[in-house]
Amino acid sequence: MSIQAAIKALKSTFGDQVSTNASVLDAHGQSETYFPVTPPDAVVFPKSTADVSDIVKICATNDCPIIAYGTGTSLEGHQLAIRGGINLDMSRMNTVLAIHAEDMDVVVQPGVTRIQLNEELRATGLFFPVDPGANASLGGMAATRASGTTAVRYGTMRDNVMALEIVMADGRIIRTGTRARKSSAGYDLTKLFVGSEGTLGIITEITLRLQGQPESVSAATCSFPDFESAVNTVITTVQMGIPIARIEFIDEMMARGFNLHFKSKLPELPHLFVEFHGSEQGVKDQAETFGDIVADMGGSDFNWSSKPEDRAALWKMRHNAYYGMKALASPKWKALTTDVCVPVSNLAKAVKLARAESDRLGLTMSMVGHAGDGNFHATINFDPEDAAQTSLVHEFTHDLNKMALSLDGTVTGEHGIGLGKMKYMASEHGDALQIMVDIKKALDPQNIMNPGKMLPSN
Amino acid sequence: MSIQAAIKALKSTFGDQVSTNASVLDAHGQSETYFPVTPPDAVVFPKSTADVSDIVKICATNDCPIIAYGTGTSLEGHQLAIRGGINLDMSRMNTVLAIHAEDMDVVVQPGVTRIQLNEELRATGLFFPVDPGANASLGGMAATRASGTTAVRYGTMRDNVMALEIVMADGRIIRTGTRARKSSAGYDLTKLFVGSEGTLGIITEITLRLQGQPESVSAATCSFPDFESAVNTVITTVQMGIPIARIEFIDEMMARGFNLHFKSKLPELPHLFVEFHGSEQGVKDQAETFGDIVADMGGSDFNWSSKPEDRAALWKMRHNAYYGMKALASPKWKALTTDVCVPVSNLAKAVKLARAESDRLGLTMSMVGHAGDGNFHATINFDPEDAAQTSLVHEFTHDLNKMALSLDGTVTGEHGIGLGKMKYMASEHGDALQIMVDIKKALDPQNIMNPGKMLPSN
Repeated sequence: MSIQAAIKALKSTFGDQVSTNASVLDAHGQSETYFPVTPPDAVVFPKSTADVSDIVKICATNDCPIIAYGTGTSLEGHQLAIRGGINLDMSRMNTVLAIHAEDMDVVVQPGVTRIQLNEELRATGLFFPVDPGANASLGGMAATRASGTTAVRYGTMRDNVMALEIVMADGRIIRTGTRARKSSAGYDLTKLFVGSEGTLGIITEITLRLQGQPESVSAATCSFPDFESAVNTVITTVQMGIPIARIEFIDEMMARGFNLHFKSKLPELPHLFVEFHGSEQGVKDQAETFGDIVADMGGSDFNWSSKPEDRAALWKMRHNAYYGMKALASPKWKALTTDVCVPVSNLAKAVKLARAESDRLGLTMSMVGHAGDGNFHATINFDPEDAAQTSLVHEFTHDLNKMALSLDGTVTGEHGIGLGKMKYMASEHGDALQIMVDIKKALDPQNIMNPGKMLPSN
Repeated sequence: MSIQAAIKALKSTFGDQVSTNASVLDAHGQSETYFPVTPPDAVVFPKSTADVSDIVKICATNDCPIIAYGTGTSLEGHQLAIRGGINLDMSRMNTVLAIHAEDMDVVVQPGVTRIQLNEELRATGLFFPVDPGANASLGGMAATRASGTTAVRYGTMRDNVMALEIVMADGRIIRTGTRARKSSAGYDLTKLFVGSEGTLGIITEITLRLQGQPESVSAATCSFPDFESAVNTVITTVQMGIPIARIEFIDEMMARGFNLHFKSKLPELPHLFVEFHGSEQGVKDQAETFGDIVADMGGSDFNWSSKPEDRAALWKMRHNAYYGMKALASPKWKALTTDVCVPVSNLAKAVKLARAESDRLGLTMSMVGHAGDGNFHATINFDPEDAAQTSLVHEFTHDLNKMALSLDGTVTGEHGIGLGKMKYMASEHGDALQIMVDIKKALDPQNIMNPGKMLPSN
């Protein structure tokens, strides 16, 4: 078998950097969501770009699938070896290679996690702002075009990756982009590889933009009588140019989940959780203007906090919405989280339609979202042993994806395609899908780079 | 000849939308720089995406080169029909198709110019911020990944194009991206086409991000004893998170040019020209903090202006740096403008090396730049009839490009590759150049889309 031949050759070159230990394989076959456990045939732990290049060459010779593996926090099964082959576990390539404080950029290996990076940056007065919640690896975040709560202010990985080093499907090592802030020199390969989910090459080095740590930070929660008022508050805030750092919405069901799990005392109404970054005076001004907008829109129940511990508790609660949601159902039930994104003007409509659909299907569903971007997640509780209910959950997510497309949106704002969303690629992209397929064929003609993911033809 | 067959077929389908009038051809063969006049064989004026698709199909059948043409303001010869064929003049596709004020986006045809767009947006309270100086078409700006003075705050076309409609080399019409603020659904084709200089397809529709018109704007000029102090001011300003809208540098030679041409009274020293956007209080705070930094760095000669007419005069002077520079030499002489971009920490070094090189070659050279991005332009006066001097000018620009690359930079921050910078593509991109070539071959196998540009193999 060609995969076994590849593993034999890998073991002979890389020795104990290659594992076929059952528990290691099993750990790499897990996912944080509903996909069945799918262990690879081997896990290889490269220590350098040269290692990655040599590993890829061996796999290319033997037609062996290669799937990069960061921290395994994907919600769409990106890292699963569904056609066998090897997981390339990047955890030993976890060095911050260079901090350029004057240029506000940093060069990292792909196994560096975002929390590790921010710890290493602490003394510089700089930070890396993209925050998907999970302590993901920066390679994984780049590969899935991740974002999160701070994208409204600082952008997504699309906006924050300046340059990459990539090992191509034949082992060639290329560099895309430079440390210059902008360039008009040729095709933007950096942006092509960001979000390519390991299907075009392996990311071995990343240059990231950094931000200055804000002098002052304050956060707040407020509630609204209905969802439209919350969304109108978001629209006005963004239109007025208030450089809000986070503006998250929480629906009434999730407020209940938070109260149950975190013992918070939120009114069971739609909420916005917000954060301001800036100078002391700037934050004060932003907060005042925002407060005026909230009042105009009929919001109430203000809770401001400038204490770091209160803010940490607030965002911990938000980042753990999944557990809040789980608190609403039996501990044996599972929760499935979806991800769609629409223009902000369609957000209230999308949330209403999602609620109506969930009610129609008799599901327990809550929503949270990055309101400034029009990106939201619906989480549905279900009993995985109840086949009929599980099928209703899939009916709901299917309807939600179709609805997002009908509202000028996308089936994924930040979780990526992976396995879970492949069936919507044709509806979302139409004839542009074939262009993606053409690019994939041109750059990975053997289809050894994460085969079976993202592109239905792959 | 296949080109003649194409023109015959185009005339039979499109009638007077096809011109072979000598003066029309000659006008389209001009460039704003040193390239010889290069008229196309015909100019076609499409009125719709369907027209573009049909035109491309006819050209594909006849192997006829197609070069999109906006306003002809390229500085690197992008629009010149160096292998014959047709210019696709987009000036009749100049409709603003939809303004989505709540979502702060707009959908335009490619022939809309940036000034036209901002006039149509005036009543909405929104504006489109990217400002390359010239009143370029938005299609041309997208195709060359243009930027300009405001990129430090609002980004370049890379950051501001959300979605595109493209006619591919076989006439297929595709759409990339959506109006959602972000997406992780597949390869980022939008970013691949932005900056592709018409070599992969023809842009027929563009969705752009907009910004809220700032409540308050103020501008200022200040001078510095040396270039390092000016650059350190820029670095500190950006690191402190001051959301400066423009921060331009002017060298001592350009200050002299401005004084000669515009009758200004600038000290003949390095300058920064800056602009602040925000709330009234916000602009005041930004300006005060910036003033403190300037003082700390040894700057002086402050001139603040919040009057619109003074600001307009200031930026008119900056945008017409070319004429300031021309004032330094005989009216018969020409001026050549280059474009490189380096990490900001290398900007002072780059400017010093450029000055030393120009002095060594005995040239009259001045520099202006988008300091916040590390992007600068050197303009050299020369007598086009003096072959020896002209050759020294090319020696200078060659050395400048090499120097930018040696300082972790790029040979073009915003003007693009076109004809002028093709010879540096291999030095800048190394093995990544072949990936660009592979993509070009996959998407335009006949090489009819702007052949002879950007990629040396093209």
